[in-house]
Amino acid sequence: MIDADVFAKLLCDWCLAPAEGDQIVVSTTTLAHELAAAMHHELVGRGAWPLLRLVPSGIERDFYELASEAQLDGFAPLELTEAQSINASLRIDAPANLRQLAGIDPARIARTARARRPIQEARLARRWCITLWPTSALAQQAGMGDREYETFVTRALFLDRPDPAAAWRELSAEQARLVERLSMAREMRIQGPGTDLRLRVEGRTWINSDGRRNMPSGEVFTGPHEDSAEGTIRFTVPSNRAGGTEVAGVELTFRAGEVVAARADRGEEFLREALAIDPGARFLGELGIGTNRGIDRATGSTLLDEKIAGTVHLALGRSYPETGGVNDSALHWDLICDLRDGGELTADGETIMRDGDFTT
Amino acid sequence: MIDADVFAKLLCDWCLAPAEGDQIVVSTTTLAHELAAAMHHELVGRGAWPLLRLVPSGIERDFYELASEAQLDGFAPLELTEAQSINASLRIDAPANLRQLAGIDPARIARTARARRPIQEARLARRWCITLWPTSALAQQAGMGDREYETFVTRALFLDRPDPAAAWRELSAEQARLVERLSMAREMRIQGPGTDLRLRVEGRTWINSDGRRNMPSGEVFTGPHEDSAEGTIRFTVPSNRAGGTEVAGVELTFRAGEVVAARADRGEEFLREALAIDPGARFLGELGIGTNRGIDRATGSTLLDEKIAGTVHLALGRSYPETGGVNDSALHWDLICDLRDGGELTADGETIMRDGDFTT
Repeated sequence: MIDADVFAKLLCDWCLAPAEGDQIVVSTTTLAHELAAAMHHELVGRGAWPLLRLVPSGIERDFYELASEAQLDGFAPLELTEAQSINASLRIDAPANLRQLAGIDPARIARTARARRPIQEARLARRWCITLWPTSALAQQAGMGDREYETFVTRALFLDRPDPAAAWRELSAEQARLVERLSMAREMRIQGPGTDLRLRVEGRTWINSDGRRNMPSGEVFTGPHEDSAEGTIRFTVPSNRAGGTEVAGVELTFRAGEVVAARADRGEEFLREALAIDPGARFLGELGIGTNRGIDRATGSTLLDEKIAGTVHLALGRSYPETGGVNDSALHWDLICDLRDGGELTADGETIMRDGDFTT
Repeated sequence: MIDADVFAKLLCDWCLAPAEGDQIVVSTTTLAHELAAAMHHELVGRGAWPLLRLVPSGIERDFYELASEAQLDGFAPLELTEAQSINASLRIDAPANLRQLAGIDPARIARTARARRPIQEARLARRWCITLWPTSALAQQAGMGDREYETFVTRALFLDRPDPAAAWRELSAEQARLVERLSMAREMRIQGPGTDLRLRVEGRTWINSDGRRNMPSGEVFTGPHEDSAEGTIRFTVPSNRAGGTEVAGVELTFRAGEVVAARADRGEEFLREALAIDPGARFLGELGIGTNRGIDRATGSTLLDEKIAGTVHLALGRSYPETGGVNDSALHWDLICDLRDGGELTADGETIMRDGDFTT
């Protein structure tokens, strides 16, 4: 259903902008072989060197189960060399089983992530993009049949538009206007059923996330002042965490930026553990506003859900330094509040979004 | 049908012998994802770093069609770095379509191969192994159904034996005895219907190819003296060349080592072009004797066919230097003569193989 050639063209035109001679890593699972082949075609045609890194879905479980102490604390030297040598990287999420890591000790996962940080940092220092390819596992999590989900993803990526790159350019321009407006704001307020939260954003930078790094994207975000959150918010969109825990109906109360009360309808134990990871986990690192009108319902995947036009999201934990945020934590957990069924986002008392519709 | 875990264990135990911390590249198509996942499991369990390089089958056609002049004469620098940094490599042939390169200009393929020679040389300077994973394309070429072909490959790999690595060790010992016998030989003679050819091998080295580099293997081979071939040979097993040409019923006559007459029932034009590639293409680079009793019939794939117990093969073109052979050519084309339906291989007049059965 998704035209892999059109998708690959969008990823090159809008996200990766490959130059002649560029070395570009494309990593995914074997389930996305169609898009990987289309990327190879597109990149070779532009004079670049595609380096395809397809793996069978789910092999990371074997690593976590079998790895020695030395392996948990290390990595293949070539992986770092590669990350330091490439010009750009594309990661295509295409899982066969979203519960592949169920029952794996989270400490082993965290230890591996820590050891691999140099690779991660080298990769982020170059052009990068993360996207997805529809699989049955993703469709199942979204509560859709395979074809229905493919249609949904097609719309989320603007691949149903005559010129997808032009559609993203248009969204980028819209978001630029929103960023301009929000850059003048001192205080943001989110109101809705069970929600009334104030955040100070004065002097912080709003980022226009227009699909170049997350495809699809469609959000603007900043890092609120770490000591500023006051009030309560109810996150109405469920969140699926790595390893398979679903956390739903999260309600947080903040005083002077810190979480002072926390509950959840499902996954409350997981929520408590997340808040206890380190001191920064109890403070906010991000306020984001979704703008993507191609995404009209929650799918259980944060990459998509946080972009729904008419939602806002807050992240517990680490800030993005480019926003001016300074919260530090091993955690960065996006939680989403849907304002489409009644709710308001205001900036210094002026309405930005009401019941999910932008007013500016 | 093939137990990928047992196969992966054999490849580690017998072929790759991974040490802790080794970086080992596994390259194949997405069709062999099951074996790739099993190799990942086995290598991680032994403390090595598997570097999986799966690609969609057939993308090389795109490269040959789209590549610019600079791309045809170059390669991604990271590929050379990788080949120079790894400890071992495993290539798993698993094609979706054996005619994928039909119609591609052979000059573009040759030019790419020339440009990539430094990568190839670096890879061959380390441990390497080439194997195969059954696909429908390979089964089709072999004239078998998928399950029948899988059973066939299982036997060819000795995976039907209780301890496959022990079975290869046993074959290796048998071949060592054959090599010992042949090392004393001055002249080899092949006789059969339409065949009577003499070759001098005195002073040349016989190699025991016991599955460590080609899995499956099962052959001993040497490089005959370049000026020694005298007589005629009829190759009774068809040969499929890259790009898709089938060449069958090849008959060659040699004088003082050089091809002086050549014909074929099918593909004669291709044969003539191959002989004209360079001066070395008209001389022999290899004499091999198949010993694998798990391979009982021709499949159209040289990797398997040249190993059939009861066959001999000769290669037009390049010698393997380790045999003492000195023939140089861009060509190395193995052609197979089946002695099982009547034929004899003798060394200085003493029978080594008669009607396909070894007599020593």
